[in-house]
This record gives sequence, structure tokens and C-alpha cells, in this order.
Amino acid sequence: MTEVKAYGAQDKEADLKEMTIERRDTLPTDVKIKITYCGVCHSDIHTVRSDWGPSMYPVVPGHEIVGEVIEVGDEVSKFKKGDLVGVGCLVDSCQECSSCESDLEQFCLNGATWTYNSKDKHTDGHTFGGYSQEVVVDQNFVLTIPKNLDTKAVAPLLCAGITTFSPLHHWGVKEGMKVGVVGLGGLGHMGLKFSHAMGAETVMITTSEGKAEDAKRLGADDVLISKDKDAMKSHKGSFDFILNTVPVSHDINPYLELLAIDGTMCMVGAIEPLPDVHGGNLISGRKSVAGSLIGGIKETQEMLDFCGEHNIVSDIEMIDMSSINEAYERVQNNDVKYRFVIDMESLS
Amino acid sequence: MTEVKAYGAQDKEADLKEMTIERRDTLPTDVKIKITYCGVCHSDIHTVRSDWGPSMYPVVPGHEIVGEVIEVGDEVSKFKKGDLVGVGCLVDSCQECSSCESDLEQFCLNGATWTYNSKDKHTDGHTFGGYSQEVVVDQNFVLTIPKNLDTKAVAPLLCAGITTFSPLHHWGVKEGMKVGVVGLGGLGHMGLKFSHAMGAETVMITTSEGKAEDAKRLGADDVLISKDKDAMKSHKGSFDFILNTVPVSHDINPYLELLAIDGTMCMVGAIEPLPDVHGGNLISGRKSVAGSLIGGIKETQEMLDFCGEHNIVSDIEMIDMSSINEAYERVQNNDVKYRFVIDMESLS
Repeated sequence: MTEVKAYGAQDKEADLKEMTIERRDTLPTDVKIKITYCGVCHSDIHTVRSDWGPSMYPVVPGHEIVGEVIEVGDEVSKFKKGDLVGVGCLVDSCQECSSCESDLEQFCLNGATWTYNSKDKHTDGHTFGGYSQEVVVDQNFVLTIPKNLDTKAVAPLLCAGITTFSPLHHWGVKEGMKVGVVGLGGLGHMGLKFSHAMGAETVMITTSEGKAEDAKRLGADDVLISKDKDAMKSHKGSFDFILNTVPVSHDINPYLELLAIDGTMCMVGAIEPLPDVHGGNLISGRKSVAGSLIGGIKETQEMLDFCGEHNIVSDIEMIDMSSINEAYERVQNNDVKYRFVIDMESLS
Repeated sequence: MTEVKAYGAQDKEADLKEMTIERRDTLPTDVKIKITYCGVCHSDIHTVRSDWGPSMYPVVPGHEIVGEVIEVGDEVSKFKKGDLVGVGCLVDSCQECSSCESDLEQFCLNGATWTYNSKDKHTDGHTFGGYSQEVVVDQNFVLTIPKNLDTKAVAPLLCAGITTFSPLHHWGVKEGMKVGVVGLGGLGHMGLKFSHAMGAETVMITTSEGKAEDAKRLGADDVLISKDKDAMKSHKGSFDFILNTVPVSHDINPYLELLAIDGTMCMVGAIEPLPDVHGGNLISGRKSVAGSLIGGIKETQEMLDFCGEHNIVSDIEMIDMSSINEAYERVQNNDVKYRFVIDMESLS
């Protein structure tokens, strides 16, 4: 085991502060990464606060990791020292079940190993995330980062990026389709960029008129203010696909009415109960409400390659590690455009 | 116009009784049909009672119509006198919009003409359904009935049949898939027959243990009692597709948990609000909840041909026209196995 510096919380009420954690020694198929940048995801905060059930403390969050390979195990074939790499939400899975065989490791039937707050099958302990100097990950869960991109702005692609790319990709978004993105935050701003780059007519759907200009800069062809009943009516029945990034429970019926025949709305934010989904809104037009969770490793690499090709990165605000608690408050107040990224040099 | 005998309701509180209605003269593209059998659908009752908004009275219900062609218009090419034909829920549509061009006339963007309680674009009045001696329908909305089937038991295929066949067909149910059918009534019993005939492993999902034997006779390989928590757990994550025929609002979350990765549950009964659909149940496994409404004319003919090939009809109970009010009470009490069919001779 190797001791490294990290930032984490000792219990669900604690602020994050510097601590020392142990990383496992590099196994034959492992890659050791010096972390240079790590994005700040709302899930980090939920886990620190045990919002989704009791977390394993200390929690060291962070699953939008970018860094440089500094050591590889004897059997590693895919990476070498000096490579620029990324790690997202997943660091292991059984590799044998039907989900893993279908490149959907996030749905591993034997339980995926998440980047933090998951039992580590190689140690007695649990996993620690990217708010730290180094991480050791099996080569099958390490991604290659296109060299032409701004490295620090790549970090959020590993969660916010794949979370929005995967449903757009899975449901076949392309030129000739009309796509709505509901909610303009860390996820929504990536949804706009991807939908636009895939060639779809892209409409930002938001409650805030103030977001219109920024939405257009990010790739929206049009902005639909969801509080404007006339505007909603004029777009009724016209969307082939809607990506709903709203992170909390809300009434989805007005959005279902926007869908065209055979249209799908995919939820990527709200894991809570959605009140009163009208059956008639699904039946009239053979519509679907679906959900999607990040993406598998193969698709995450495809997303990164797509970003390289289309020169897509996240809009970010850089912070030092010591500012993380203030950053958490700002994330909770929706006060970030559109993702914080920690300069991990600030921890050394 | 031609006067014909019918059975209908004069207002939403009235019992159905005999009346005289006018049928339009046979237009060049029309087919005049002598009705021999008409199924009784729960929608008939909802329309008679104005449950879905104010109906146009008098209401003459009935959209599961079987009969014999007795006259054809000059331009009719598809049918001739003496043909055995069917009419379902639709008697007209614009034939020009994107839905009609995609053989989804039920979603006609200019408004389909329903078999009853719809404005008739060829007369000043509204449409009257199959509880009558004759009906006049454009040839594009008339179906051919395979000769090998028991004609009276074909009638319910025109609504209950296509309502269940269409989603199973659209979502590609076939051998190697595991399919659940929730609810054993007029729709559910057809769902079992179709899923079984398509080669899927078919499971009846019901609250009533008493329905197990009948479900197996109808095509279920297994019966899952949804109140049995252990049984529900043992089927968790295993269904590729679930056809949900429950006609009222209910908690769908237990069924979402039964779906496999990428599984879909399709609602065909409940048009009401579904309480608290947990976003997490969709996100964990990229699952979908969809809806489906009858089927287009082309698919309805495919369904009838499939029935001819696999010798599938509805399980029915024959009644005389004069027993319709008692039959409605029994439908509302779920006391029919599995569809009433009116012998239209009893009206002459």
C-alpha cells in the first residue's frame, strides 16, 4: 500500500479536509495514475452527505479524473508511462455477466465497483475517488484522452459527458431529428453540445429566460421557456427525443406533451419519484419515458473520441483543493458555469 | 341516408335501448356491411357514461365489428359483396399526414375518425358504432377476416386483439424473450395468446391466485402472483418486455423492478395518472415505460392474418342485444371470460 494525500469527509456532517489514504500496490493489470484534474459532480455531495443511504467514511469523492500514467503492472498492454488518461465513475466489474459482455459495466449484474464509496475487491477497504494525488485502476477501466483537447476541461466528460452522450447515442440522435434538453446545468450544457454536434435541431427547454443566450452559445438552435404556455403549445408533439437533466422530482407531463409520435424522453437526473405520470400521455402517441445511467467503458471511450473529433469539452471554473467546501455550496445553489474542476497540483 | 335499427344511449345516465339511426348512402369508396357480431369493449361503457369528457348523444357504441359486405361503391377495389370483413376502432383519417403515411392512422395528426362518437366528415352528424344492423365504412378502414376462424370470436380481435398485438409486435417479442402480461381480462387474455404464439416465455402477472389455471390454459408458461414478495424477488430483473393491461391507475414500480436491463413496460389500459414513478427504477437498467394505442390498419390486418395462421381467437360469451345493460354491469364487475359478443341477429 502507498500513502497519498487526499481530501475527504469523516462523516456526513463534516466539511471536507485533507487526509491521508492508502492506495493498493499496482497489480499486474493495474495502471497507477498521477491525478492532475478532477471534476466536481453533484453526486460527490450526495455521497458525502449520505443522501442516498449511509456512505462508507471517510468518503473521498471525485469520479471525473484526468491524469498521467506513472506506473503499469506487468500484464498491462493498453497503457504506458506518460500516457494521458481518464477515469470515470467505474473502476471495476465482474467482466463476465451479460451486462459486462454487452459493454454495459454500469449495470454489472454482480455489482460494479464505483470509483468511490464501493467495496474494493482487491483490499479490505472501500474505494476512494479522485480528490487525491494518485489512483490505481485496472487497465480495463482506464480511458484514453484525445491529445487535442484542453485537458482540464476534459475531466467533466468522464461523468457529465458520458451521462448525456450515452442516451443521445443510444436513441440514435442525428441530423433531421428535433431534440430537447431540459435543464441547463452541468449535464444540460453537455447535452446541448452533443446534440448539436450530432446534427440534431437542438432546443433548450428551461424555466429561466436568463439562460437563453448562454444556451445558444452552447449549441441550442432555439430556446423554449417552459413557463410560457403558448410557446409550449407551439412545440407540442414535435420532439423526437428529450433529454431531461433536471436533478429533482418534477411534473414530467408537460414535457411528454412535447414529444412526437414514438418519441422518447430520457431521465438522467431525477432518481426520485415523479408524481402522476399520465398514462394517457404515453398511450396517445406510443411515447416512452426512459432512464439512463452514465455509460459503459466502450461507449465512454467513443464519447471521448467524439469529443476529440468535434473539439468538445466542458465549460469549467478552476478551483484549488482547499476551496472545495465553498464550491459545494455554490453547486448546491446552482451557481457554476458549468462544472468546477479541481487543480490537483494544489493538493501537493 | 338509410334508416337502420341500433342500440344506444340517449344520455350519460340512460340504459341502452333500441333506436333508429341513419347510415350514409354508400359513397364511391365505401363498403356497406351487414353486421353479424359486435364485441363489447370497456371503452363502450366509458363513452356511454361520458367518463372521458362529454360524449355526443345518442351514443351507439361498438368497435369490434364483424359482418358481411352487402354493397360496394363504384370505386371499391378491395372488397366485393359477400366478403367476410371486420371494422375496428377507426373508420377514417386524413390519409396524408406523417402518421397516416407511416400506417399509424390511430395517431392521425388531423384527427382520426373513430368508429363511434366522432364527427363524420361525410355527414353533418357523428359516427355510430357496431351495435346496429349495418355500417358504411371507407374501404381503407375495412379488414379481411381469415376464413378458418370462428367468426363470432373474431370480433374482439378488432380492439382487444390489436391493442395487445401491436405493442408485442412493435417491441419485437419473439422466441428467447421473457414477457410478462399484467392483468387477466379482455386485453390480458389476448396478450397471453399472442405472446405465447410469438414464441416468448410468457408469464401471467396477477394479484389473483385463482386465475393461475386459466392463465396457463391461455398460454402462460408461468404465473407470478404480484402480492407474493418472494416470488416477485425471484423474477426481479428478468423480463425483456411487460404488457400492462391494468385499466386503472396503480403503482407500477414493482413491475419496473421486474424488467431486465433495457426492458420496456408498455401500458395499454391505464390512461390515468400513475402515482410516483421512481426515476431511479428507470435509470438503473436503462428501462422504459411506454404506452400504445390500438394499431394502424396495416398492422390490424397483419394481426388478423397472424390469428388465421396460429388459429387464435378471443374467448367469448355470446349475448343477445337486449341483454346489453346486464352485460355492462358484468363487465364493470370483471365478470366475463373474457369478452362479450353480441349476436346481431337478435336486433333484427
